[in-house]
Amino acid sequence: MKKQIPPQYYHDYLNLEDLLTSQELLSEKAGERAHDEMLFVIVHQIYELWFKQILFELDSIINAFDRDVIRESHIGIAVSRLSRIIEIQRILIDQIQVLETMTPMDFLDFRDLLTPASGFQSIQFRLIENKLGLTAENRYEYGHRDYKSQMHDEHQMILERSEASPSLFELVEHWLERTPFLVFEDFNFWEQYRSAVDEMLASDRKIILKNDKLSSKQKKTHLQEYENTEIMFDSLFDKKKHNDLINKNEKRLSHKATKAALLILLYRDRPILHNPYKLLSKLLDVDELLTTWRYRHTLMVARMIGRKIGTGGSTGSSYLKESTEKHRIFSDYGNLTTFLIPRSLLPRLPDEILRNLGFYYNSSTHK
Amino acid sequence: MKKQIPPQYYHDYLNLEDLLTSQELLSEKAGERAHDEMLFVIVHQIYELWFKQILFELDSIINAFDRDVIRESHIGIAVSRLSRIIEIQRILIDQIQVLETMTPMDFLDFRDLLTPASGFQSIQFRLIENKLGLTAENRYEYGHRDYKSQMHDEHQMILERSEASPSLFELVEHWLERTPFLVFEDFNFWEQYRSAVDEMLASDRKIILKNDKLSSKQKKTHLQEYENTEIMFDSLFDKKKHNDLINKNEKRLSHKATKAALLILLYRDRPILHNPYKLLSKLLDVDELLTTWRYRHTLMVARMIGRKIGTGGSTGSSYLKESTEKHRIFSDYGNLTTFLIPRSLLPRLPDEILRNLGFYYNSSTHK
Amino acid sequence: MKKQIPPQYYHDYLNLEDLLTSQELLSEKAGERAHDEMLFVIVHQIYELWFKQILFELDSIINAFDRDVIRESHIGIAVSRLSRIIEIQRILIDQIQVLETMTPMDFLDFRDLLTPASGFQSIQFRLIENKLGLTAENRYEYGHRDYKSQMHDEHQMILERSEASPSLFELVEHWLERTPFLVFEDFNFWEQYRSAVDEMLASDRKIILKNDKLSSKQKKTHLQEYENTEIMFDSLFDKKKHNDLINKNEKRLSHKATKAALLILLYRDRPILHNPYKLLSKLLDVDELLTTWRYRHTLMVARMIGRKIGTGGSTGSSYLKESTEKHRIFSDYGNLTTFLIPRSLLPRLPDEILRNLGFYYNSSTHK
Amino acid sequence: MKKQIPPQYYHDYLNLEDLLTSQELLSEKAGERAHDEMLFVIVHQIYELWFKQILFELDSIINAFDRDVIRESHIGIAVSRLSRIIEIQRILIDQIQVLETMTPMDFLDFRDLLTPASGFQSIQFRLIENKLGLTAENRYEYGHRDYKSQMHDEHQMILERSEASPSLFELVEHWLERTPFLVFEDFNFWEQYRSAVDEMLASDRKIILKNDKLSSKQKKTHLQEYENTEIMFDSLFDKKKHNDLINKNEKRLSHKATKAALLILLYRDRPILHNPYKLLSKLLDVDELLTTWRYRHTLMVARMIGRKIGTGGSTGSSYLKESTEKHRIFSDYGNLTTFLIPRSLLPRLPDEILRNLGFYYNSSTHK
Repeated sequence: MKKQIPPQYYHDYLNLEDLLTSQELLSEKAGERAHDEMLFVIVHQIYELWFKQILFELDSIINAFDRDVIRESHIGIAVSRLSRIIEIQRILIDQIQVLETMTPMDFLDFRDLLTPASGFQSIQFRLIENKLGLTAENRYEYGHRDYKSQMHDEHQMILERSEASPSLFELVEHWLERTPFLVFEDFNFWEQYRSAVDEMLASDRKIILKNDKLSSKQKKTHLQEYENTEIMFDSLFDKKKHNDLINKNEKRLSHKATKAALLILLYRDRPILHNPYKLLSKLLDVDELLTTWRYRHTLMVARMIGRKIGTGGSTGSSYLKESTEKHRIFSDYGNLTTFLIPRSLLPRLPDEILRNLGFYYNSSTHK
Repeated sequence: MKKQIPPQYYHDYLNLEDLLTSQELLSEKAGERAHDEMLFVIVHQIYELWFKQILFELDSIINAFDRDVIRESHIGIAVSRLSRIIEIQRILIDQIQVLETMTPMDFLDFRDLLTPASGFQSIQFRLIENKLGLTAENRYEYGHRDYKSQMHDEHQMILERSEASPSLFELVEHWLERTPFLVFEDFNFWEQYRSAVDEMLASDRKIILKNDKLSSKQKKTHLQEYENTEIMFDSLFDKKKHNDLINKNEKRLSHKATKAALLILLYRDRPILHNPYKLLSKLLDVDELLTTWRYRHTLMVARMIGRKIGTGGSTGSSYLKESTEKHRIFSDYGNLTTFLIPRSLLPRLPDEILRNLGFYYNSSTHK
Repeated sequence: MKKQIPPQYYHDYLNLEDLLTSQELLSEKAGERAHDEMLFVIVHQIYELWFKQILFELDSIINAFDRDVIRESHIGIAVSRLSRIIEIQRILIDQIQVLETMTPMDFLDFRDLLTPASGFQSIQFRLIENKLGLTAENRYEYGHRDYKSQMHDEHQMILERSEASPSLFELVEHWLERTPFLVFEDFNFWEQYRSAVDEMLASDRKIILKNDKLSSKQKKTHLQEYENTEIMFDSLFDKKKHNDLINKNEKRLSHKATKAALLILLYRDRPILHNPYKLLSKLLDVDELLTTWRYRHTLMVARMIGRKIGTGGSTGSSYLKESTEKHRIFSDYGNLTTFLIPRSLLPRLPDEILRNLGFYYNSSTHK
Repeated sequence: MKKQIPPQYYHDYLNLEDLLTSQELLSEKAGERAHDEMLFVIVHQIYELWFKQILFELDSIINAFDRDVIRESHIGIAVSRLSRIIEIQRILIDQIQVLETMTPMDFLDFRDLLTPASGFQSIQFRLIENKLGLTAENRYEYGHRDYKSQMHDEHQMILERSEASPSLFELVEHWLERTPFLVFEDFNFWEQYRSAVDEMLASDRKIILKNDKLSSKQKKTHLQEYENTEIMFDSLFDKKKHNDLINKNEKRLSHKATKAALLILLYRDRPILHNPYKLLSKLLDVDELLTTWRYRHTLMVARMIGRKIGTGGSTGSSYLKESTEKHRIFSDYGNLTTFLIPRSLLPRLPDEILRNLGFYYNSSTHK
């Protein structure tokens, strides 16, 4: 039974007494208030509150996937909470425009006082990255320094624990590897898909060869690119080649999970695959928006401090630039579109399988 | 001389230890955590942090205008800080989309626990309204209850103090009334303007009369509207009529300030009027965005609670709807466009006056 | 078999030769180009291109619903195309900001030349309204004039045809009335729901009565509101009362469709109801965004022309204001939240029914 | 005198008859309509209409700067038209979200028919780049092919003409080089600035050296970065070094223009510098938004086609990625923040100069 809760007042419920007095301006302590430091503090506090919310949702999604049997409803919950994270990320990006109302000159008024405080020390942001699945070896190492090095000891421990726990990337990969709805028994899907692919690639090749506007030099370039496409397909059909790419750090998702994810993409029109498809699609959204945020942030920092060393003694702008690409986590899902084939070439699934992927409305209840 | 400040760490500088533990879920206290209550708390905390920032900027703008001699630089500062408020308001509106990821059903899980907490009790939002210039008599009174009645005593006092202090509306009005750059001495601006207006109105009237597609009934309607336009111009030329409209609560800005504001609009191309024009324009933006926020908020609340009584025992959605229009503060500036006349009809200012409204680049330094 | 298509060039494929020469400035014809007329023309052309796309999607959705047996896949297609319409509507709203870079003074330079052209004459916008389900009687009649009166004859005929064809509102209502997945046979859902409602209403009533902060006058107000809630529930349980509200134009959706829609809301967690829930939710989004667009448009027009008569001899701003509320089409779906009850009170469906609302993963295929 | 213009109807004024029939679907010609091709066509037509508007504004800005004496009002016009371009660019970026409602699978339905049409062939986009100031040598050359090679002959000529005409970059550079308001006569600004810089750099250096948390290896890294900062300042004080950087393609803006731009940044609070500061700032905005658009576009294309060859036989995604950084035009203005110094260290300008940078309100007219 639920306990009784005393009547609430807005101000107390939200702890506003503390919240609204937690802005301490260093410039004021130093004797001369810099007007824009208030914005700087509040914007960063708001970032951290959003990060807390993202972590809260992320933990619940990880929890939904960290079990043996994953139900439809777990996927449904994951999809709607990822959607929430995505809406928050859009705000994170948009609110850079607020911070940009501070000019570089106004920032100079208090910038030196911040040393060595820096956004690099945001433990929550690092946790988000770790929980999504960024690995220590994929981190861009700025200035020969571990990303945890400038943090409080207890925060270092929290981060280490998150590195050791299964990430969302790993849990979803594991789920894909044992996904039940795509076991075809007798039906040889992959053989039929392969012959469709061969047909499509042959047509792509012809497009290049018959393009009269291309010089022979240009044709050569295109044919090289075409061969790269072939090589990518090879890795799809050959686990060993796929694993080679993983070893070269060009792919991350396992061969088995890749094939399951591709099937979800190809047959996403079937009701049972709606939510799995959305799941993969939203993971990619989260990844792209994280990258877009880093990118917009880079532009903003570059504009704010030019090429000088950042607060915390960092060349913030170069760091952010490097990490933009390197820190992608779910890009393998995006690259799956390489393997799409036109609907007309798609192997037609046997009725038995089709039925397992749909709903049955009891038509007799129709009036 | 500046005092020495010890080295700062991000986590401490932003007071994150307190900030990130200040979310207490009532559903948890009641024995069963409602997942979405975290979002509800954090979104509202973020609203309040933004409100604090808006108040901080607003106070500094009010301070810039609360003096005898107002310099160009004061106007410049007001313009750039209003721009910041505007960017924040855009975020306030956009972030409604985050809250909308909570479904009405999810809200029901903890809604009853909130009683009687309600956004109506946000003292900061009321302060923003008061400082901008919303008067007690223009407030939509919900349920025969003063807007301060459900607040802590010290908050009631703070609000009363803000009601008694000069608002931004009043300060800008006062500044307009004594604005120096529009004293024309011998040049009779208003006489020339009036004859231009008469010419324009006559042409408008002809447009209606010669429109063959209008039935005589429709023409009548249009002519009535045309006469309303004439009446509005009458009030511009006749202080008494203007004051009548003020008494009927159809206008608020004084006759003298209205004329100064119109001159700023008409000659806004002159360098010296750039910033004054932007000032008026941004006050209108702030007002519109506040209204847009209320409007979007209304739609969201209606969708969340339907037509039931809100948290705090309020019919939130009807309140918000009523207040949307009633709480406009600077709409008189928007209505000034009624009085614009085409550039071609605009009285040409004497050279002497023109010179006072511009810069002089020493052309000899041109090479 | 597909026909061969000759090689395409971007410029020709998009018909850019025509498209980019289709801007004719009246101010240029009149002898003096007004710089901002180009923006005015192009922004409106872009609006019309987006309207064409919305109509294209809308027609395909209507087509999907205009049949006897509606499959899961039809709902899925409707949901994804409504999502596209929603994204377009967001752009329609945002792009008002581009038009707002034109100042009222700049508009005056060519405004009089436009007579009597006016956005009221956009046939595509009227078609969107008609196809969604706005009825002729619900239209705000501006100036005693039919909305078709200022259009070309063939356009009047197209609009009349759209008025006579089944609208999306009607088709979805019809689908809801015969929706098969909510036939409960022996299980008496509505009896159990009603007793849950009674319990909830009694608790709401207690909240008002025990609130010490309310004066007796305020309590009276709240109790009246509470009784309104009761009346609304009455109409849910009594078809006659529901029809009375329809006759008074306070509701539009039929009693049977209302009940089906409410069941979808209440059990939207069940896989089979995912898409039907999204359908209703997105129809409401479309409606709200249309309203939001009208609202933002109103503010913009008011700012642009003040209280003067609009192009086409209309008092544009007052029209837009009136129509904002009156032209809502799907608000009944939003009001359904009034009838939500907490999950804990929700009647537990029998296993047999639950099974019909879900998927069955063949657990033996799990490895 | 103005010519008479006959009455206009909305439909005719906007040429809607042609505009709304200018969408020809290749999939329809090929015998099987692909539903999503309509969106593809309309979105790209809308892009091109926006590009036309951007070019229209850009031409008028270039025209304002392509003269011997540039007045305050020219700068003012440039600033407000750049603001308009910026608002359009924001829409260009946002509307990618509309195109993203098309799935890769839906795109496959008509993608092959488009060969070799491709966004690379947009002459208007190339013109925008050329007119802003992208030089042929700074273009990322995709597949050993000139960017003009796949265009109609007359379009190639138009592009060649734009390459040969003065770009906005060059015109603004030229204006900065002869800007009159920063001639200081006797006052030795640069000497005083240099000693302020030396003071600031010495302090930055101390920050690194006294940071106990840095290992000696890390300190070395930081000191190298610090030295890079010194080298950048050297180039500011030494024209020869600056020109070396230009020759190495690390800078583009001339030494003289760089110094003028820096002065504008440093004293942007002075009324006369408001608009010049905004001009530089908005040029940077345009550049960043162009880059952001390319970046978002890259992500979208990658997601749509994976790593396969693009329409037009291009590896669209790799191209877009390469060009993102390489095609920046105004980044030198962003890098100027490197040279900012705190307000407290800023040389105090002599009264005579200050007076030339401000307005004079005739205080006697104050009442």
